[in-house]
Amino acid sequence: MRLLVVNVNTSEAMTAEIAQAARAAASPGTEIVPLTPDFGPASVEGNYESHLAAVAVCQRVARHTDPYDAVILAGFGDHGREALQEVCRVPVVDITEASAMTAMLLGHSYGVVTTLDRTVPLIRDRLLTAGLTARCAGIRAADVPVLELESDPGSSLDQIVEQARLLVEVDRAEVICLGCGGMAGLSERIAAELSVPVVDGVAAAVTHAESLVRLGLTTSRVRTYARPLPKPVTFPSGAPATIGGAGA
Amino acid sequence: MRLLVVNVNTSEAMTAEIAQAARAAASPGTEIVPLTPDFGPASVEGNYESHLAAVAVCQRVARHTDPYDAVILAGFGDHGREALQEVCRVPVVDITEASAMTAMLLGHSYGVVTTLDRTVPLIRDRLLTAGLTARCAGIRAADVPVLELESDPGSSLDQIVEQARLLVEVDRAEVICLGCGGMAGLSERIAAELSVPVVDGVAAAVTHAESLVRLGLTTSRVRTYARPLPKPVTFPSGAPATIGGAGA
Amino acid sequence: MRLLVVNVNTSEAMTAEIAQAARAAASPGTEIVPLTPDFGPASVEGNYESHLAAVAVCQRVARHTDPYDAVILAGFGDHGREALQEVCRVPVVDITEASAMTAMLLGHSYGVVTTLDRTVPLIRDRLLTAGLTARCAGIRAADVPVLELESDPGSSLDQIVEQARLLVEVDRAEVICLGCGGMAGLSERIAAELSVPVVDGVAAAVTHAESLVRLGLTTSRVRTYARPLPKPVTFPSGAPATIGGAGA
Amino acid sequence: MRLLVVNVNTSEAMTAEIAQAARAAASPGTEIVPLTPDFGPASVEGNYESHLAAVAVCQRVARHTDPYDAVILAGFGDHGREALQEVCRVPVVDITEASAMTAMLLGHSYGVVTTLDRTVPLIRDRLLTAGLTARCAGIRAADVPVLELESDPGSSLDQIVEQARLLVEVDRAEVICLGCGGMAGLSERIAAELSVPVVDGVAAAVTHAESLVRLGLTTSRVRTYARPLPKPVTFPSGAPATIGGAGA
Amino acid sequence: MRLLVVNVNTSEAMTAEIAQAARAAASPGTEIVPLTPDFGPASVEGNYESHLAAVAVCQRVARHTDPYDAVILAGFGDHGREALQEVCRVPVVDITEASAMTAMLLGHSYGVVTTLDRTVPLIRDRLLTAGLTARCAGIRAADVPVLELESDPGSSLDQIVEQARLLVEVDRAEVICLGCGGMAGLSERIAAELSVPVVDGVAAAVTHAESLVRLGLTTSRVRTYARPLPKPVTFPSGAPATIGGAGA
Amino acid sequence: MRLLVVNVNTSEAMTAEIAQAARAAASPGTEIVPLTPDFGPASVEGNYESHLAAVAVCQRVARHTDPYDAVILAGFGDHGREALQEVCRVPVVDITEASAMTAMLLGHSYGVVTTLDRTVPLIRDRLLTAGLTARCAGIRAADVPVLELESDPGSSLDQIVEQARLLVEVDRAEVICLGCGGMAGLSERIAAELSVPVVDGVAAAVTHAESLVRLGLTTSRVRTYARPLPKPVTFPSGAPATIGGAGA
Repeated sequence: MRLLVVNVNTSEAMTAEIAQAARAAASPGTEIVPLTPDFGPASVEGNYESHLAAVAVCQRVARHTDPYDAVILAGFGDHGREALQEVCRVPVVDITEASAMTAMLLGHSYGVVTTLDRTVPLIRDRLLTAGLTARCAGIRAADVPVLELESDPGSSLDQIVEQARLLVEVDRAEVICLGCGGMAGLSERIAAELSVPVVDGVAAAVTHAESLVRLGLTTSRVRTYARPLPKPVTFPSGAPATIGGAGA
Repeated sequence: MRLLVVNVNTSEAMTAEIAQAARAAASPGTEIVPLTPDFGPASVEGNYESHLAAVAVCQRVARHTDPYDAVILAGFGDHGREALQEVCRVPVVDITEASAMTAMLLGHSYGVVTTLDRTVPLIRDRLLTAGLTARCAGIRAADVPVLELESDPGSSLDQIVEQARLLVEVDRAEVICLGCGGMAGLSERIAAELSVPVVDGVAAAVTHAESLVRLGLTTSRVRTYARPLPKPVTFPSGAPATIGGAGA
Repeated sequence: MRLLVVNVNTSEAMTAEIAQAARAAASPGTEIVPLTPDFGPASVEGNYESHLAAVAVCQRVARHTDPYDAVILAGFGDHGREALQEVCRVPVVDITEASAMTAMLLGHSYGVVTTLDRTVPLIRDRLLTAGLTARCAGIRAADVPVLELESDPGSSLDQIVEQARLLVEVDRAEVICLGCGGMAGLSERIAAELSVPVVDGVAAAVTHAESLVRLGLTTSRVRTYARPLPKPVTFPSGAPATIGGAGA
Repeated sequence: MRLLVVNVNTSEAMTAEIAQAARAAASPGTEIVPLTPDFGPASVEGNYESHLAAVAVCQRVARHTDPYDAVILAGFGDHGREALQEVCRVPVVDITEASAMTAMLLGHSYGVVTTLDRTVPLIRDRLLTAGLTARCAGIRAADVPVLELESDPGSSLDQIVEQARLLVEVDRAEVICLGCGGMAGLSERIAAELSVPVVDGVAAAVTHAESLVRLGLTTSRVRTYARPLPKPVTFPSGAPATIGGAGA
Repeated sequence: MRLLVVNVNTSEAMTAEIAQAARAAASPGTEIVPLTPDFGPASVEGNYESHLAAVAVCQRVARHTDPYDAVILAGFGDHGREALQEVCRVPVVDITEASAMTAMLLGHSYGVVTTLDRTVPLIRDRLLTAGLTARCAGIRAADVPVLELESDPGSSLDQIVEQARLLVEVDRAEVICLGCGGMAGLSERIAAELSVPVVDGVAAAVTHAESLVRLGLTTSRVRTYARPLPKPVTFPSGAPATIGGAGA
Repeated sequence: MRLLVVNVNTSEAMTAEIAQAARAAASPGTEIVPLTPDFGPASVEGNYESHLAAVAVCQRVARHTDPYDAVILAGFGDHGREALQEVCRVPVVDITEASAMTAMLLGHSYGVVTTLDRTVPLIRDRLLTAGLTARCAGIRAADVPVLELESDPGSSLDQIVEQARLLVEVDRAEVICLGCGGMAGLSERIAAELSVPVVDGVAAAVTHAESLVRLGLTTSRVRTYARPLPKPVTFPSGAPATIGGAGA
């Protein structure tokens, strides 16, 4: 079985980290094919970046011509899962929903610890449209930018553990979900500190994707995820207008 | 990996059918150990029967002394998953939630087709406490008793397909869940009729259980599913009082 | 009018305490018939114990052959009400729902103070399936085991009052429900401390049961609570497997 | 025990009918004191009328100087319960919530059959703020004006039964609530037709009010239903401006 | 365009303040016609007062014979909007809903800061029936009576700012709504302190009302807000019974 | 005041139609500046197209260097509003939420009639994350592709009216929202057929945007809609991979 694991940003280092987490979770015989988008933002920490990443992810997958059995979207709380489901004939699993579902099998409620405060509402909205908020005890931010996780994961650990502890003790979460693709690898240390299960989304998504492939099931085409209708679609030429910089 | 698959009623024939469905879904190297409760109702179609089955299932698992890696509770909409989670050190997966989660990965909403009208509210309540109703489009009964499925599955197929069709066309479900452990084996024929994915709970549960085992995760002990406190517990002696019979 | 009041555990002392609370609330002419299950756990503080108690309660009621007009299930947050409704021809009232309903007649929102933290999610799930969470301001645990309430109710009072105060001041509850059958008798002291109404579930249930009897109404048989279908049901022989002990 | 039962409109005939239903449900020793507002609308079938009736009801009760133990507000879906709770030192029970609560003790879900289609959203909003919608299966109107019920209850019966049947068969209600104070007296005939319990709000409210009195409980004063602050309040002089007439 | 802006209490000073806020928000060419009820409470801080004010507001508008294009109900959390919609042929806008809607256009969630703790549940219920709670982060009271705002708005500012700060920092509101008609004029100072948008309900309502008029739209008559049916309606004569005073 | 009105697809004809609807609703002195994205899909009828359109819309607005006061996103049910809110210093109004809010001021519930069945879940999810579903009675599709509306609006009218009628009569909507930017212009004819208010999203959005500008309010920067952080962002070069065509 061959799983595409698509990073949502253009950081090759983060793609490598995600691939490592995916391979650690994969069954024997499952090949992990990591993909990095050809364009888009260096990290996804907001809505504009998330939409652009969704397009870049779909394009990257669309031009992957070798066969594959499922696709994993490795951006926590980001857009793009529904679009990939339209585009791909094979099952698509998003790490946000994958980790929430795995967590719901392990405890009465779960909490999410993520990077920046500004992404908390995006994650909540993703869980809301996925129909998975009923047992979400809370979402807390450790105030660590995505790329800092990558450059120095150790230094961020304390802040992440502190927020996870509040999720368990104050918000009454019974399981912790790591709310960022770049947190893969921290789960064991957090679990050791808190004595609750800790779910890494990439690992969870690999197992859900393998499961769907083994069951021979793929996305329903009956309505929401029908294939895109053939129609003229154009792409930008030239450099993007600057968004969010000092002069904007 | 060894998975216990526990039927909820005392029908050995249904246990065999469930075991067959489980084996068909299992990965190479996964051993399916089917268990039938030592006591309890011949079929579970109501609340009293469901509580008794929950006790019988826990007892049956508790006296299984060989090692195992996860437990699957093979009763759709029945009680007992939370109790098993307290009792077992390994992960526990219920076919109700397993099939709903798998379905939610495949479409925007799902529907459940079950046996008797009287079990519809039980299934809804199970999904409600599992936090999985937000994308449940509907639950419909085919008016087929559980044991009739077992004795003659073919003759029930038309009624099940008809209700599944209403779920897709009227209730706007995009995926169908088979709402009875005894429906395992009908999924392909229903999928062929309706052109939507059809999820069998036993098969789905096998893959979720395998996933949890591979991820090295088990039930959180922090609160809801803490182990039962040691205390005196007694069991009945003699035959049960008749419940629900003509003379009651 | 004769009301069966069924304790959920095998403690005769607690049955006596419940009976006393029931008699204090009963109208003149109402006879309280306390019942203790013949088997089951010494106290109900988890899901396995709750299912076993549900079976034991139904069995105890089923073998009570003298006439009665209604049944009260005296376990807060425990399972079994729906099963009793199937089994009994007369109305069944659970103290969980009875106290929530009474509280909702008295204030804009209510809070529940219970014994152990681990039972909080069980209570929430009971209120959820009963459709009574919309005005539940919170559920807090006083960290007092059920049987300690019985052996020394006075010493637990301070902890219960403290949690009730937090429910009123922090969670904005306007009425307090006592979330354990064994708390009957503490309501006046708590009300005196907090100046809000305090509802004891046993007392509330007695009045709701009397009301249903006087109105000549009993459980609907149309679907969920239809009588169990006649079918073979067997019971365990011998001692139960140990669950939750040190060696498990 | 003495219960004030306040009609919401100025029809003495309807007050008499309500009083009769109340007396039929009351315990021995309970005295029913029917009250008709001194002013207000001849029937309450909309929001303006409902607010005016709420004021008239509070005024009528405020000038009742003899002692009483509880108050019943006999308008289904109408405003005024919260205001009466502020005004009265004794418990207040509204027939809308009383009937929903009684129904929820009898079945998994309930439906309401009312008079005019335009009052359906008012009833829904009342149940919503009362926190009682979670198990409301539906509200249907029989297209019968309130005063027609009074003048000729028999002729309306067929339409009411037809809507009740749809609530049971289509909306899956297991209990029917009669959604108008003036429907008191029809419950037996509807129950006979449909084989489900039928709850009359006035009768249900009498039993809930008696229960609260016996439990020695009254409205919480901690926040929402604190007594009105003393302040200047003036009343209109002269005739009201015409509202809703042909010339408006 | 001519907008009626109706105060809910009999304080002419507050009417003047509301009119000033309305005029500051109105477009050129929009005439603001402030109205004070002829009767009713000096301030609205509870349910009885709110129903009486609703009647008084409807009566005041009904006897306004000059033409007008829309009506603004200037009481935050008070009753009466639905009644005015029945009574008036032109659009009606309530400041509660107007401010919530405006706030929802500006941030992911909003918070309301109001006067007295006892009005918090009334505001929540208004937002609930308006269908606007999903993004309400919280409602907090500054513990300032309505009439104190009028007599000395400056002295209340600190308490209001403090609660608004808690809404932003603890409850995660991104926009603040001023939860009292009498807070008009404080918005700029609060916005300066907190760096989030602050919405004054009167100003917001003026723009919503102007919008509806320009779009040529008015209240739907199809069901809920159908015109009141012509029927006998009477009014009180003489002074009201005292409610809520020391002797009550 | 100058409002940018951004079409979501690359059809200049539809931009012109939207501009016409916007101008018809604008106040005197409001200048409507229509914009068409430089790239993206010819019509937006799915998730991939919606994300690409969101990026294209943000880019189109970002390179508009003349001053403007607010932005209107003229795609019903499409993504991109939150991204525009991050990108723009001025208020942003989406026609989906604008029409729902306007409708909620006019009736107790609203319904949406849209083009294709496959877009119904997208619209529902947009309303869900906007917090506006509580009073949404239903969403129905007329089975008319977006571009057909443009080429021949008259011929689609019957199908749209039929679905609107079902929304009013079956789903109990009291107001109809036109669920497609391209339906602007049909509102009068539908209103004439059905006697309920009909809201065109573009017109509603113009009035909401004007309102925010007049109130001097813009998007909260405190959390969700903080400005994008400066970071490397790249764009694609060359033609897009084909998505959704026959060969995909």
